[in-house]
Amino acid sequence: MEEWDEVEVPKNVKDIFVEMKNTAELMVDLAYSAALFKEKEIAEEVLELEEYLDILNYHLMVRAVLAARNMKEAEQITSILQMARSIDDISNAAADLAKMVLEEKIHPLITEVILESEETIGRIVVSSNSILVGKSLDELDLSTNTGVWVIAIRRGKRWIFDPDEDTKIMPGDIIIGRGTRTALDYLKEIARGVIKVMSNE
Amino acid sequence: MEEWDEVEVPKNVKDIFVEMKNTAELMVDLAYSAALFKEKEIAEEVLELEEYLDILNYHLMVRAVLAARNMKEAEQITSILQMARSIDDISNAAADLAKMVLEEKIHPLITEVILESEETIGRIVVSSNSILVGKSLDELDLSTNTGVWVIAIRRGKRWIFDPDEDTKIMPGDIIIGRGTRTALDYLKEIARGVIKVMSNE
Repeated sequence: MEEWDEVEVPKNVKDIFVEMKNTAELMVDLAYSAALFKEKEIAEEVLELEEYLDILNYHLMVRAVLAARNMKEAEQITSILQMARSIDDISNAAADLAKMVLEEKIHPLITEVILESEETIGRIVVSSNSILVGKSLDELDLSTNTGVWVIAIRRGKRWIFDPDEDTKIMPGDIIIGRGTRTALDYLKEIARGVIKVMSNE
Repeated sequence: MEEWDEVEVPKNVKDIFVEMKNTAELMVDLAYSAALFKEKEIAEEVLELEEYLDILNYHLMVRAVLAARNMKEAEQITSILQMARSIDDISNAAADLAKMVLEEKIHPLITEVILESEETIGRIVVSSNSILVGKSLDELDLSTNTGVWVIAIRRGKRWIFDPDEDTKIMPGDIIIGRGTRTALDYLKEIARGVIKVMSNE
């Protein structure tokens, strides 16, 4: 459990806001991943991110309120607070789903629904002879090259949530990704070492 | 304005549920697109989809409640209703943002935040010499091949929201897509006719 009190919050309103939006979107992806794979550790990460998001939201509100110097500005700034509330609502929806995972209350239908959505979640095992091995996420740019958005990586017993651009793929890594069924299957072939050249490179 | 009363609702619980999830995700993408481009027509589509989603939610609840024959089943089915509520919460957040677009209350910062998120929204103009022209979305599979998720297409004066797989790209089409900045830039080069071969084909 990290200590959010000591967490660094971005300095300006825009950066806090961007961080809030990215975090809420990550929470939704993680919540669906947790529900699909019945992974309580992922669900717990969602709840930690919810706390982090609450702190970001508080800092955003303080800064936004301070910035208003007249009626017109106050009205405009209210739209920022409203959008922040929308992002917070989305994060709360993700947290609700994560709580259901922790309480082991995921109906089998929920799994089916996640699997059959237009964008779904997949678990991709990286074999030692895959071209992915030893390359960083920045070099690989899996999003552009395969259509798969990397949500998390399972390495041995530990999880890397929202891995950064420098993270290098290692043999045995399990990538949790979001994409269409076709995109996920394509990345699976690359990860298995069946496809040896990645497009767009 | 379509008449939702006459709309066909999928027959079984799973299909209704999948449709709800896809619709809510489309609403979020459309809401951000509407906010970014100040497009009231897109915002109105979000509000129409909200009505559609309410109808789906109602049908889901009726069917789910009917399916419970004992205490254990009732508890399991409650998790379905909870997840449906999460999806509904997400769709309401999207609708709130759409309403702000209609009321012209989008602070410039909101635009910047959407543009600077990890996944952002782009507008891609298709030139007549692009390899995209004349091909269907199914053939192109832009999601796998470029990392761009197609949200809507502007064709002349009309919008095609959530275009289906048979939709063929025409010269002059404006594609509204979601992806990373790199993925959107890559599709822009293809749409401009600069890149003549698409990967993975």
